[in-house]
Formats: sequence, structure tokens, C-alpha cells
Amino acid sequence: MRQAILDLEESKIREVANAGMGRADVLPFWFGESDEVTPEPVRAAAVAALQAGETFYSHNLGLPELRQALAGYTSALHGPIGPERIAVTSGGVNALMLAMQMLIDAGDEVLAVTPVWPNLTAQPLILGARLRCLALKPQPDGAWTLDLPALLAAITPTTRLLVINSPNNPTGWTLSKAEQQAIVARCRETGTWILADEVYERLYFRDDTANGAAPSFLDVSGPDDRLVVVQSFSKAFLMTGWRLGYLVMPAAMTQPLGKLIEFNTSCAPVFVQRAAAVALAQTDTITPRIVAHLRQCRDTLVPLLQALPGVQTSPAPGGMYAFLRIDGFADSLQLAKCLVLEAGVGLAPGVAFAPQAEGWLRWCFASKDVARLTQGVERVRAWLAAQVR
Amino acid sequence: MRQAILDLEESKIREVANAGMGRADVLPFWFGESDEVTPEPVRAAAVAALQAGETFYSHNLGLPELRQALAGYTSALHGPIGPERIAVTSGGVNALMLAMQMLIDAGDEVLAVTPVWPNLTAQPLILGARLRCLALKPQPDGAWTLDLPALLAAITPTTRLLVINSPNNPTGWTLSKAEQQAIVARCRETGTWILADEVYERLYFRDDTANGAAPSFLDVSGPDDRLVVVQSFSKAFLMTGWRLGYLVMPAAMTQPLGKLIEFNTSCAPVFVQRAAAVALAQTDTITPRIVAHLRQCRDTLVPLLQALPGVQTSPAPGGMYAFLRIDGFADSLQLAKCLVLEAGVGLAPGVAFAPQAEGWLRWCFASKDVARLTQGVERVRAWLAAQVR
Repeated sequence: MRQAILDLEESKIREVANAGMGRADVLPFWFGESDEVTPEPVRAAAVAALQAGETFYSHNLGLPELRQALAGYTSALHGPIGPERIAVTSGGVNALMLAMQMLIDAGDEVLAVTPVWPNLTAQPLILGARLRCLALKPQPDGAWTLDLPALLAAITPTTRLLVINSPNNPTGWTLSKAEQQAIVARCRETGTWILADEVYERLYFRDDTANGAAPSFLDVSGPDDRLVVVQSFSKAFLMTGWRLGYLVMPAAMTQPLGKLIEFNTSCAPVFVQRAAAVALAQTDTITPRIVAHLRQCRDTLVPLLQALPGVQTSPAPGGMYAFLRIDGFADSLQLAKCLVLEAGVGLAPGVAFAPQAEGWLRWCFASKDVARLTQGVERVRAWLAAQVR
Repeated sequence: MRQAILDLEESKIREVANAGMGRADVLPFWFGESDEVTPEPVRAAAVAALQAGETFYSHNLGLPELRQALAGYTSALHGPIGPERIAVTSGGVNALMLAMQMLIDAGDEVLAVTPVWPNLTAQPLILGARLRCLALKPQPDGAWTLDLPALLAAITPTTRLLVINSPNNPTGWTLSKAEQQAIVARCRETGTWILADEVYERLYFRDDTANGAAPSFLDVSGPDDRLVVVQSFSKAFLMTGWRLGYLVMPAAMTQPLGKLIEFNTSCAPVFVQRAAAVALAQTDTITPRIVAHLRQCRDTLVPLLQALPGVQTSPAPGGMYAFLRIDGFADSLQLAKCLVLEAGVGLAPGVAFAPQAEGWLRWCFASKDVARLTQGVERVRAWLAAQVR
């Protein structure tokens, strides 16, 4: 077995979850997933396809009608994008892996902005890349910010690929349009590809964009820029378990990417794609409701957390996480395990996302029942009070 | 974009299929897929899971109950195999890619026995491996055979991985138990891993094994041998479009493989796994019927082909393909295109599977209606007669 694979970190989120798994008294906020089932009309579309016998292989790049619908959906948000720039993948993480296989030779330099979902930094290591990380910085109020000049300086002609996730999991940090413009300009100078994980774009709460979504690299790039944007049906359509994503790329990349899909998973199931098509067609009823509810979740959770003694956190402009630290607790993995076992609250340890996030905790606030969040905070409050005693 | 990806061959099978796509008058035998829908009880299990709201993330390695069922299924065929040696993947091709990611560093030597499904030779190239091929040889009767001493000599201490597919797509060639024993013994000497694609094991027609399946490397190996066996639900359960497979590996590999699943696709959909569990539970009614029908297909098609003037082909001991050549036609891609456009018969060109298979054609005989095969042969016969004129 390859040393590079043996050396990959086990998920520290799973480590905490495993400690609490099967305990009925734990409120789980550790995974990046709503606890709400996929909307019924979406499920019904898959059921209909199965009953109609759509159980055969399909196009590598996705059903033509789904790619067409995705082009329409993406164009409505970000201006004209044709279906020839879109491929359907077996989940957002699969789209990221395909893009990396397309762009990274062993030994290439990859630069990632962290803290970030650990999959984004593991994939370059699987492919034998040299990984460099540039860390966001926490402010006294608990918000994380980018040192843009430091990032621009870190991008050099030897940087093959920049990996960036905004709105960011776990910090909620979100790139501004001006920052994206500066990054695109720098990458044009250096010949660096940008791999933008924008799966949280619709979960955006700032009300400062015309389309309501977070700023996207698609808004500030041309069709031939070295840019791949990864998207997923998981977040904006409550479809985590369906494993369906897509990517937007330069048209010249689509045909070779189809080869990589053939050699990785061949295609996504047709009945899953039929469900996705219905989700897209009903996005105007499905997604605004999800986003409004998540805003309510965030605006319930964050003030309660901020009112706890010694807690720093800031309302995330995007995503579905509160990222917080508590004075006096430096070891986030140990703290998360204590909170599971002693307080019955399941959070993800910050160190899972970057060494710089040690001491922090990620709380997924995508809870169908907002009272679960209140109840969780109350448990943490009581636990903290017991520690002081 | 990486030169290695741009250099990957487009599928020549797709090239032929594209030439005939949308023509109602073409009988398609080009893809490795039955034209029969997945059995109803299997589809019903997925429908029930969707209606029950099973739309969330799941275990990286697969549902524990499905892994347990797979252990029972595999043990019944090949002796004791525990669930700790099994992982569920997003298709057989995905299992192959995961195994290769686990085992191949860039620059490593991979040896493949060809002709073979092109995905098996493309994957090492994606990972930057050095690929060597050892070709089977066609006999005058149209059967392909292995030069075992040549293969054993080709496996050296620098051979990191041996990739071997038996029953073989496209030739139908199937390893004997004695050959497998010799290969395992040689790989133990050299420290070479064996990646065995055995997805056609149940489609076996020789009646010379106790379990009815083709000989498997699992029958001649220990639990700690450097062996990964890839399986799929596609062939023995008519589930191609579901994209579900699994692999059997040494127990020590399972946990690191789970990391690779997390970083490639995260997990397979729960509702797909529920369907697979029902397929497994009903294998005694589903699979023998499929195999008996395929035997009828083979035994209908092959004699008809053999009766055509200038055609060499031999009944395959395993799989679902007739592999044939026709005197006077050296360019298989050109011949396949002519047959699509002029005879209305869609076959796969042999050159898609190895240079040594140039001049050959693959005919998938997994046809629900056996008369389609007869009709196809009649079309080829008429077309050949017209060429002679």
C-alpha cells in the first residue's frame, strides 16, 4: 500500500462522531448535512424513473437534458454558460477529484486556502502533489479573514493549481467580488488554474448581490480562463445522500473530462439525474425556503453562542456552520469528545480543517427543528458552568 | 490540462456507437450491458428506501448490513470472507480506480493482461504509472489463450501491480485454477499485488467448478495475500445503471480504503445499497435465470457466426461476448462503422481493447430477445454477401 495513502489523516470529525454514535442522548451537529429529507417531488422523480425501468448506463457527461437545465440555472445566476461547459458527476467531492486528476501531475505544486474541508487538501496528496497552504486569520470577534496580498504573493508561476472554497467550510468566510477579481488577475499572470468549490453559493445571507448568491468566480472570469467551479445538489436541494454534483469548466476541458468520468465512475445513475432535473426545475420553491430557514437557524444559534461566557463566534455570511472557540480549551479534538460524552452535543473539532483552527469547533446549524439548536446551546452552557465550578 | 489525460484514447466503442446513435434501424450490441431492466423487486427496494426518506450520507465503506450480506455471498462462493475485508463502491470501475489509487505511485510499473476493457489500462496512466501489457494469443479456432510462462516471466520484483480480468472482456478467455495458483505463487515471490477484475465470475458456462462460478483468485489465496478482487452488481443482477460495486481485500487495507472512498465519492447512495441487498438476498432466483439465458444467447449466436463464410469465433467459457474476426477485414474500427451504417449492426471494434485485437469485433450477446441475435447475424451475412459481389 502507498505510504501517501497510509499517511492521510483519518477524519477527526468521524473520530468524534464514532465516540457518540448510537447514543440516543447526543444532539449531532458534526456533519455538514441538514437533518431534513429531500423534498418529496424530487424523490418522486427518481421513483418514477425506477418504475419506468431507467436502469441502464448513460452518457459520461450526464443526461443532455440535465446539462441543458444546469446551463440555464447557472446562466441565470452568473451570465451565459452553455451546456458544453458542464459535466454531471457522482457528487461534489467526485467533481473535485476529477478536476484534480485533470490538472495535477505528481510533483506539481497545489496551493490551498485553509481552514477547509479536509477532502480538498487530501485529494492533491492522493495524486502525489506538493501541497502548500495559506491560512485565513481569525479576528477578535470570531470572523475569519483573508490576507489578500499574502495570497497573491503565494501564487507563483510554479503554482499549478489554487484550491479555494467560498463560502468556506468551516469558517463561513466568503470571498468578495473584488478579491476574486484580484485572484483571477494574478492567476492569469502565473498561468495557475483555479479550482473553486462553490457548493455553498446559494446559502448566502448578506443580501449584497443581485442574484442573492455568494460572489462566484464565474462572475469575474471569461469562458477560457483556467477556472473550474465545482457545484453539488447536496446543500441547496437537500440531496446529500444522492451523490450528485457537477462542474463548470472551459469548453475545451469537457471532452477530456468525459474520459476521466468513464474511468472513475462511468456515469451517474439516470434515476438520480431525473430527480436532480426536477430539483432544478423547482429551485424557486425549494431553495429560497431552505436558505430562509438556514438564516433563521444561524440567527438563532449565533447570538446564543455569543452570550456564553468565553465564546467567540461571528455570524457566517455564507454556508451552514457556526465556527467558534471557547476560552481555556486549546485542544479541539479533546473538547469535542468531552462535549459528546459529557454534554451530549456533537460538534466537529477545528483541527480537522487546519492546524490554525486548533481550538475551534464547527457547529452545523442545518437543523429542521430550530429548538434543537437552542437545546444544544443550553447543554453547552450547563457543561461550561460545571467546568468552572 | 495534463498531457497524460489529453493522450488517453477516446473510446473507440463510443466512436462506433456515435456513428449509429439515433438510427432506429440499428441493432446495438456494442456496449457491455444487457437490454433487460433490473428485476422488479430490486427496483422496489430502492423505491421503498426513497419513500422512507433515506436520502442522507452513509458509511464510507457501505452499509454494515450490506457488507455483512456480501461477506455471506462471497463466503458461499469462495470460502470464509468476513465483512472486514469488503468495501462497497460506486460501481466496479470505481472499485478498480480506488484499488489503483491505493497501490500505484507515479512511476510504478503496472503489468496488464490484454486485450482488456480499456478502463483497466487507462487508470494506471491517469495515476502516472508505467504500463506494460502482455497479450493473450488467438488460436486458429478463434479462442484466445494465455502464454503462462511468458506472463510469469513478465512479473518481476519491479512489477508493482498485475491487472488481470477473467472471465475476460472482450475475449471470453478465462483463467484456470492451476494458472491462478501459478500466478499467485509468482507474485508472492516478487511482492507484486494482483488486481483481479472478476465481475463476470457468475457468467460462466463450463460446468467444471463446484460453485458454478468461474475460478477466482479468492479460491487460491490467503487472507493476507496481496490481492484485491473487484466485483460489481452490474452483470449478475442486471444493475449496470445503478453504479454499485465492491471489492474484497486484505483486512489491513480496508480502513485506508475507506479514506479513499471519502475523498473520491464519500459513499454510495443508501437507496441504491438497499436495492443491492435485495438483489443479493434473491440471488438464487435472479442470477441462475440470467446465466441460463446468457448461455442460450451464446449458444444461439456462436454457431450462426461460425457458419458465416470467413468468420472465426469460439464459444466463450465466460462473460457475455462473442469475439470474432472476418477474413479480409483488417481494420476493425472501419469494419464496425461499415456494419453500423450499411448493415445496421452495432459491434465494438477489437482495436479498442488492444493493438493485438485489431481485426476483431466484440458482440455483446446479452439480449433479452434471442431473435435479435439471429436477426443481427442475418444482417451481417447479407452484408458480407454483398461485399463479395
